[in-house]
Amino acid sequence: MQTFALTPIGIIRSPYREIAGTPIQPVFAADAEGEVEVFEAYAEGLRDLDGFERIWLVYAFHRAGPARLRLVPFRDTVERGVFATRAPCRPNAIGLSCVRLLSVAGRVLRVAGVDVLDGTPLLDIKPYAPAFDAFPDSRAGWLDAGRAERTRADDRFAG
Amino acid sequence: MQTFALTPIGIIRSPYREIAGTPIQPVFAADAEGEVEVFEAYAEGLRDLDGFERIWLVYAFHRAGPARLRLVPFRDTVERGVFATRAPCRPNAIGLSCVRLLSVAGRVLRVAGVDVLDGTPLLDIKPYAPAFDAFPDSRAGWLDAGRAERTRADDRFAG
Repeated sequence: MQTFALTPIGIIRSPYREIAGTPIQPVFAADAEGEVEVFEAYAEGLRDLDGFERIWLVYAFHRAGPARLRLVPFRDTVERGVFATRAPCRPNAIGLSCVRLLSVAGRVLRVAGVDVLDGTPLLDIKPYAPAFDAFPDSRAGWLDAGRAERTRADDRFAG
Repeated sequence: MQTFALTPIGIIRSPYREIAGTPIQPVFAADAEGEVEVFEAYAEGLRDLDGFERIWLVYAFHRAGPARLRLVPFRDTVERGVFATRAPCRPNAIGLSCVRLLSVAGRVLRVAGVDVLDGTPLLDIKPYAPAFDAFPDSRAGWLDAGRAERTRADDRFAG
């Protein structure tokens, strides 16, 4: 089957230079500010983004280890299928984070709630639209009963 | 900069064989059922997914035309930056849809709210977690004032 080659459109700057200790989701990093630098060639695509309170960052888990189909997630103590987790060591190591957009200055976005490593390659930005994306009452399997106290990563999925 | 090669992990089957008329978001296709067939090599990764009411499908917009940085979205009448839209003709043509998971039988998922073309290459599945993904009161820029009556695609972004 066809493969798809993706080229980064920018880079994400965050306070996190090591995997261990990095927040595992934006909600656990609400105060962590970072910058998204979009490369000059794509800057025109940012027009009108500033009206959105939140945006999706789609990025490469560039420091994830080899894909695993079963793993023990950060917020659990037993093995789960990788597609039932948000762990980075996936067959296609694409990450997805919903962050708050604080400002847009030229091709640099200031964002809050950054949960990715400094230097993460950015693949796409999408506007967050509650009508398409917000389902607050959705049942969430093992995560509903998971180890909710865990908010930071360790090295278990590192490359 | 490094490029990332993605290989499909499965295929999405839907009632939509032509771009024109395909719903532009799952919320406009709530009754449309489809199947996600995950290839045998990845089937083990589906374990525990059945506890989730919704899942994210990450896929390739395999029939999108060339990337455009500015375009008139389906739900508007003026040009917007591509990253402020969910249009398919993006620099990295990755799609993201939140669908309802009806059942898991082996490596075939039955889903509702499918808004993609039949035969769409699947790149990843992630569990939908309200704690990470649901922000119902988030301001949504031009979409909040957009042409809300428009729910189906036409051919404007076709390849």
